[in-house]
Amino acid sequence: MGMPSIDDIRQAAERIRPYVHRTPVIGSITLNERAGANVFFKCENFQKAGAFKTRGATNAVWLLSDAEARMGVITHSSGNHGAALALAARTRGIGATVVMPNTAPEVKKRAVDGYGARIVLCEPTQEARETTTQSIIDETGATLIHPYNDNRIIAGQGTAALELLLQAGELDVVMAPIGGGGMMSGASIVAKAHTPSIRTIAAEPLAADDAHRSLKAGKIVQAGNPQTIADGLLTSLGPKTFEVIQSYVDEILTVEEGAIIEAMRYVWERMKIIIEPSSAVPVAVLFKYPEVFKGRRVGIILTGGNVDLDHLPWKAPVAG
Amino acid sequence: MGMPSIDDIRQAAERIRPYVHRTPVIGSITLNERAGANVFFKCENFQKAGAFKTRGATNAVWLLSDAEARMGVITHSSGNHGAALALAARTRGIGATVVMPNTAPEVKKRAVDGYGARIVLCEPTQEARETTTQSIIDETGATLIHPYNDNRIIAGQGTAALELLLQAGELDVVMAPIGGGGMMSGASIVAKAHTPSIRTIAAEPLAADDAHRSLKAGKIVQAGNPQTIADGLLTSLGPKTFEVIQSYVDEILTVEEGAIIEAMRYVWERMKIIIEPSSAVPVAVLFKYPEVFKGRRVGIILTGGNVDLDHLPWKAPVAG
Repeated sequence: MGMPSIDDIRQAAERIRPYVHRTPVIGSITLNERAGANVFFKCENFQKAGAFKTRGATNAVWLLSDAEARMGVITHSSGNHGAALALAARTRGIGATVVMPNTAPEVKKRAVDGYGARIVLCEPTQEARETTTQSIIDETGATLIHPYNDNRIIAGQGTAALELLLQAGELDVVMAPIGGGGMMSGASIVAKAHTPSIRTIAAEPLAADDAHRSLKAGKIVQAGNPQTIADGLLTSLGPKTFEVIQSYVDEILTVEEGAIIEAMRYVWERMKIIIEPSSAVPVAVLFKYPEVFKGRRVGIILTGGNVDLDHLPWKAPVAG
Repeated sequence: MGMPSIDDIRQAAERIRPYVHRTPVIGSITLNERAGANVFFKCENFQKAGAFKTRGATNAVWLLSDAEARMGVITHSSGNHGAALALAARTRGIGATVVMPNTAPEVKKRAVDGYGARIVLCEPTQEARETTTQSIIDETGATLIHPYNDNRIIAGQGTAALELLLQAGELDVVMAPIGGGGMMSGASIVAKAHTPSIRTIAAEPLAADDAHRSLKAGKIVQAGNPQTIADGLLTSLGPKTFEVIQSYVDEILTVEEGAIIEAMRYVWERMKIIIEPSSAVPVAVLFKYPEVFKGRRVGIILTGGNVDLDHLPWKAPVAG
């Protein structure tokens, strides 16, 4: 069970094709001028369920044997992976259970519920999540689909970079945000298999820079309880994603919270597309380190567009 | 001078091609399910300067003789037309003056200034705008480019519908918002010339339904001082646009403010694109009158994406 290969990712692309969007790649002259680079945005904010997570979840669900599938799938997630797994299970007509902390926002619960999955609420602790999940697995025989530390997931996420390279043509740099590392693992396998000289850069909030520290330390450093606006990037690496990232990611660059918010707003205002804060992290890196990107052809994966429109980061929330 | 013909619009398309975006046409399965129709959105929110107005302004600027061009262009506008004319003038390397009320938001002034036009502020009355504009014309010989009541503008705006029909294939309905009527005039000329059976529908806020009342009355009814969130649709029809709309628009349908806001938020959340309130008016019409659109192929022009992100309509603005 080593790492996923480029062939695993190519096969994943075939497998999930009927169920996911081939999202567009877009650019912006104004942004190129600011960055001094030629930037290609792979718009996974337009993906089904609003994020690239649908790719990995769909790949995992369709890799199950019929016997496994009959018993359903389960995950614990308060974010995009839960909705993605719910949607993926629906494409195969099987049951899905999503264990969520009872503090999860209503909008997230509604998304999971809207795709027909069963929601089980638990206390908002890691222990409660795991025991709740395990007891349901014991009961139902459902297959656990981890959000990132899983070769099926990594292979599925890699299909976004595969499309990006077809759509944008030759690239000098491929960059994506890093949280648990599923997207960055898939993207870096694809990039290095395609052209070894492509520079693979992971973008991380400085306030949640556990991946950066892990790469330096040569072992996984836990994220702890980071406070960042990029709520898709709170988790620590897993053993599988850490192995891939050690092998194939050239560099992890970090940015401050203010720069993430500024980059997010810049994309909304200039490009008229909605990206979530996690997607703005590589854009902020692009602006912060011009010397890294100057004159280069840069592919950036905009990972998602799920934002609570009532609580935008550039405004204090209205009381009541 | 009559109305612009389909040939005028085809020529405009050739003329402006080097200077404007051929914007994409996109759809949404979720939205189609809600509407019970097959909807094609022409994304002028992705147009240069953030709105379709760049088409008309560019056509007008490039139709000037060299002698006229040397003396520059002028308009009075507090909205998208001012920025569009500034940008259009820059493509020809000529001067532009935009007369704006001294109450205009900073963000609008910055856009005009960013494209290198001269801003002249005046009192926020119709009379002050007109006398200020006229005195600059007397001084400089600049050509006035009216935001909609001008055949060059109407022909330029029509190029959006021309592209829509190429990109979406056969349509049963073409719909756009109506304010001064420039876009709707151009779109209805194109639709009726292409296929006379295409139903042309203008979408208007009920709170600013002067076009609806004008069509009923058989003469232009002034808008007065309407209060609507759709700030691109405040103006009254002009004699030229009224003539076209009487001839080629089948129906004007109106919607309430709450429905406009709901439609705007729906598009942001489900389609992950930023549209301004005026663009949400036809989407709200689509949802309000399902019997009109059921089972039809509907082309909708999303006219612009210029929104003040600090003052979104679904939140009360934060004090201070």
